[in-house]
Amino acid sequence: MAKRSDAKQRMVQAARQLIRERGYHATAISDVLERSGAPRGSVYFHFPGGKPQLAVEAAEAHAHEQVQYIDRAAEQADTAAGLVEVYLDLAREGMVNSDYTRGCGIAPLVTEAAQQEAAGVGDTSRRGFSAMTDRLAFHFVDFGLDGASARQLADAVLAGVEGALVTARAQRSPAPFDAVRAIMAGYARAAAPTSAPRRRR
Amino acid sequence: MAKRSDAKQRMVQAARQLIRERGYHATAISDVLERSGAPRGSVYFHFPGGKPQLAVEAAEAHAHEQVQYIDRAAEQADTAAGLVEVYLDLAREGMVNSDYTRGCGIAPLVTEAAQQEAAGVGDTSRRGFSAMTDRLAFHFVDFGLDGASARQLADAVLAGVEGALVTARAQRSPAPFDAVRAIMAGYARAAAPTSAPRRRR
Repeated sequence: MAKRSDAKQRMVQAARQLIRERGYHATAISDVLERSGAPRGSVYFHFPGGKPQLAVEAAEAHAHEQVQYIDRAAEQADTAAGLVEVYLDLAREGMVNSDYTRGCGIAPLVTEAAQQEAAGVGDTSRRGFSAMTDRLAFHFVDFGLDGASARQLADAVLAGVEGALVTARAQRSPAPFDAVRAIMAGYARAAAPTSAPRRRR
Repeated sequence: MAKRSDAKQRMVQAARQLIRERGYHATAISDVLERSGAPRGSVYFHFPGGKPQLAVEAAEAHAHEQVQYIDRAAEQADTAAGLVEVYLDLAREGMVNSDYTRGCGIAPLVTEAAQQEAAGVGDTSRRGFSAMTDRLAFHFVDFGLDGASARQLADAVLAGVEGALVTARAQRSPAPFDAVRAIMAGYARAAAPTSAPRRRR
């Protein structure tokens, strides 16, 4: 059982990598098997819904990891602006370290209209992005922003990161991450009264 | 000749629409023919490079249209902040009017790694995005921003729009456009001295 579950996890991670590199349609089940080293027979055992199910689980894993990154960034930061900066630095680092070959693990499901292939795919991308903005907004409030400003900043940070994952990749330059980082952190600095105590500490 | 050229333009526009709706790989030549009403024989007459060439011309048409939108927004605006607002409103309107079915005409070439299919595709997306940021930065300088601030704002606005085209679509909500608009316009307002004359008028 442990081994089967390992194979499943390896397949989900391989699918996530491939979708980030080449999108949804260009990711074939055979590529996922090759990269994960999982046996062919395991596909429909672990993923009776086939490729759409694999993509849904890959997108969920991606969103889960991003929420963890957001939490880790909030741990390292002392202010809302600091959270913006650390999170943007993580995203920038991932792009540069992949030599501009790896984008978002959720966006391809949206831009390739993968929801037309199977029920539930559209829900997955919506829920994944919502989980990320909700977590960002939660921490921004925690750092002293009012609810409306926190929500606005969270929506803008997610859009900025998602866009930079495309434009930085196309231009092979981290400049879009740096630009989003500077402008969003500036907004956060102005929106959070410096005297506001951080609630949870 | 006029008719042939019409067919070519119709095919480019049909390819652009389809790529915006479903991405690069899911757009088949047969779909482009069906939507454009062009005869099958015209594909390799007008596009000897096949689908990659069609996608490149569609992306170039998309970038060209966006640069026109940026110029039109600059005409309507009196300040850098106004340009940000009008351009974001145009992008938001396009998304809402398409009932959240239409994204960017360039991004799928990047996220689906279409540059691996044919030489020149990667250049097209890089040049398309550069044309847009260059034009935004040009107008921001024209409205009184210094060169570095103008470039930073242009990179951030493009990233914000590209990201909102994904996250707003996934969430079926214009909130990401509104959030990017508010924060970027605020930055523009702070960066442009109100007393600065607009250079070209």
